[in-house]
Amino acid sequence: MEDGAGKGLECQKIMDGKANDNVNDSDKAIIPSCCLKARASNTELEAKCHATVVSGWFSEPESCSGKASKRVYFNNPMWPGEAHSMKVEKILYKDKSEYQEILVFESSTYGKVLVLDGIVQLTEKDECVYQEMITHLPLCSIQSPKTVLVVGGGDGGVLREISRHNTVERIDICEIDKMVIDVSKKFFPELAIGFEDPRVQLHIGDAVEFLRNVPEGKYDAIIVDSSDPVGPAQELVEKPFFETIARALRPGGVLCNMAESMWLHTHLIQDMISICRETFKGSVHYAWANVPTYPSGVIGFVICSTEGPPVDFMHPINPIEKVEGAFKYRRELKFYNSEIHTAAFALPSFVKREVMLLRDSPTPAQQICVS
Amino acid sequence: MEDGAGKGLECQKIMDGKANDNVNDSDKAIIPSCCLKARASNTELEAKCHATVVSGWFSEPESCSGKASKRVYFNNPMWPGEAHSMKVEKILYKDKSEYQEILVFESSTYGKVLVLDGIVQLTEKDECVYQEMITHLPLCSIQSPKTVLVVGGGDGGVLREISRHNTVERIDICEIDKMVIDVSKKFFPELAIGFEDPRVQLHIGDAVEFLRNVPEGKYDAIIVDSSDPVGPAQELVEKPFFETIARALRPGGVLCNMAESMWLHTHLIQDMISICRETFKGSVHYAWANVPTYPSGVIGFVICSTEGPPVDFMHPINPIEKVEGAFKYRRELKFYNSEIHTAAFALPSFVKREVMLLRDSPTPAQQICVS
Repeated sequence: MEDGAGKGLECQKIMDGKANDNVNDSDKAIIPSCCLKARASNTELEAKCHATVVSGWFSEPESCSGKASKRVYFNNPMWPGEAHSMKVEKILYKDKSEYQEILVFESSTYGKVLVLDGIVQLTEKDECVYQEMITHLPLCSIQSPKTVLVVGGGDGGVLREISRHNTVERIDICEIDKMVIDVSKKFFPELAIGFEDPRVQLHIGDAVEFLRNVPEGKYDAIIVDSSDPVGPAQELVEKPFFETIARALRPGGVLCNMAESMWLHTHLIQDMISICRETFKGSVHYAWANVPTYPSGVIGFVICSTEGPPVDFMHPINPIEKVEGAFKYRRELKFYNSEIHTAAFALPSFVKREVMLLRDSPTPAQQICVS
Repeated sequence: MEDGAGKGLECQKIMDGKANDNVNDSDKAIIPSCCLKARASNTELEAKCHATVVSGWFSEPESCSGKASKRVYFNNPMWPGEAHSMKVEKILYKDKSEYQEILVFESSTYGKVLVLDGIVQLTEKDECVYQEMITHLPLCSIQSPKTVLVVGGGDGGVLREISRHNTVERIDICEIDKMVIDVSKKFFPELAIGFEDPRVQLHIGDAVEFLRNVPEGKYDAIIVDSSDPVGPAQELVEKPFFETIARALRPGGVLCNMAESMWLHTHLIQDMISICRETFKGSVHYAWANVPTYPSGVIGFVICSTEGPPVDFMHPINPIEKVEGAFKYRRELKFYNSEIHTAAFALPSFVKREVMLLRDSPTPAQQICVS
């Protein structure tokens, strides 16, 4: 490595199973010369960085717990054959928690980025889409939500969004990995601000276990903000989990669950819709939104209600425009509005064909309107 | 290079300014050893392929006409700091036309891919979104379209979509680069099938020149399917071009124009909306759709009508479900339907803020509905 090669730009081998800096050590990064080349914007023919940061660029590799030495270049099993890459300005943090590898870097155009087990969870530029949609799709669909549970969501962004709803009296959050919360508080204050709301009750632990001990019918809404269903989140797409969710919701209570990409995971979506139709006796729908830094540029949501007062997800009874103070709460809304809410349920023709259970919902074309 | 290293997998230095295979020579590819490594799915630390195919992966580089030796690794000026990569199974074609570099490769999960000047134009998997949206947004918004002009669109996909409309009597297409048409006919028969419609009249040449000679008010609809506004397509986002378009449209005729990403190019969108508002005296709107292989996973459209019978783009007067035979025409519709049409006009809150001219259209949230 050349002396002084890295001035003003930090990059280092990451997630190689050896790195173990803590939050306060993040400035001691090693600077390989390849990063300099990237900075100089020259053609890069010999990339000697680690696979996840090729010449100063981050790319999503395969999920890699325990197999650091055999990691595949790109080719995540959840989205084989493609990768999205971001230019890395500086690696801010990396460590291994009890559950996953955690990486934070400053990108050149998407702001700070949070990565778990090699998979981008959020960027400062586009986190608004996921946080706002997964929260307001359910909470704007019921009148005066009072009790809400978040499963996962350790970055705090969903809490921030729930806090806009002034009818809410109690927000429980059950996150398994405390390190995610600590990292968010340090590097993503605009998200972690959600933890400052006095209505928030934090529970560190396993959500399956937590839900077993919840009184029946306790919640008006449950939001499952989990990572992809590999590793610790596997249980969260299985039937027993949805049954405990349904049990914890009041009659006519609502669930919104992260549900992957319609371009890549129609089989998984079909399975989730199928399980939810069996479990939730109210309505079950699929909605989607465009998130640039997620695979295929899209994220989906399964949204359900339990038997009870009917819930019309597509015509929200509690529109955000009528929630007092919602627009100004700590940070303005960036993506969500009531038009976007309704539009999110419009499904491409191939989705209706491939996910057979969605064919009859929402109903035919002439029944959508905007003006 | 190792002997016999490339059996069963072809990859080669591409777009280096020297390559000059023609369509029939595509099998004579050179196979560098790095591609083999990618195939074996091992961590790739020393990528020795050309910058656009790193270890058997294609990534979008900067637009590179005439500057092959100084190409930037990733970092396209239209979307700096990020890149989408696809695994390359086989390079099928590469050549330089009079106007641009043309590359076709077989990807591992998106089917065949067409690349112009290093920028992905379409993949077999997701071309449906762009072709269907740019065509049916305008054609379903007017009653009985008869005469249609396509600017660009040499792959034929837009022609295929226009052909679904049985009221259409004449389809003119003005494409500047004949090589794109030839390549599409060879490698993308599902798109190029559009050229087989007897209503199609092909004009090879410059669209600005073509439009100058068009009788005033000739067309019911004009679709501008151009590449990004750098290089040959630069003129197509400037005022004089839109004025010739408006002149060529009948009163109440419609234009649909490719209009980039709302995440990356709000300044460009603002400029286009501004020019169109000055030029088109009917309505001017912005719509978007999710395309996984385009930057930020999204593509936008500016859609306008000239002064005359009012056009309500959001409530199509000619819904696709009522166009006889539209669903079955040569290939089923994969993305577009009337729900998607209307939903495409729902704009995220940040877009309304950043593109000031879009604030008042469409009108507020409570006026969208789906059921």
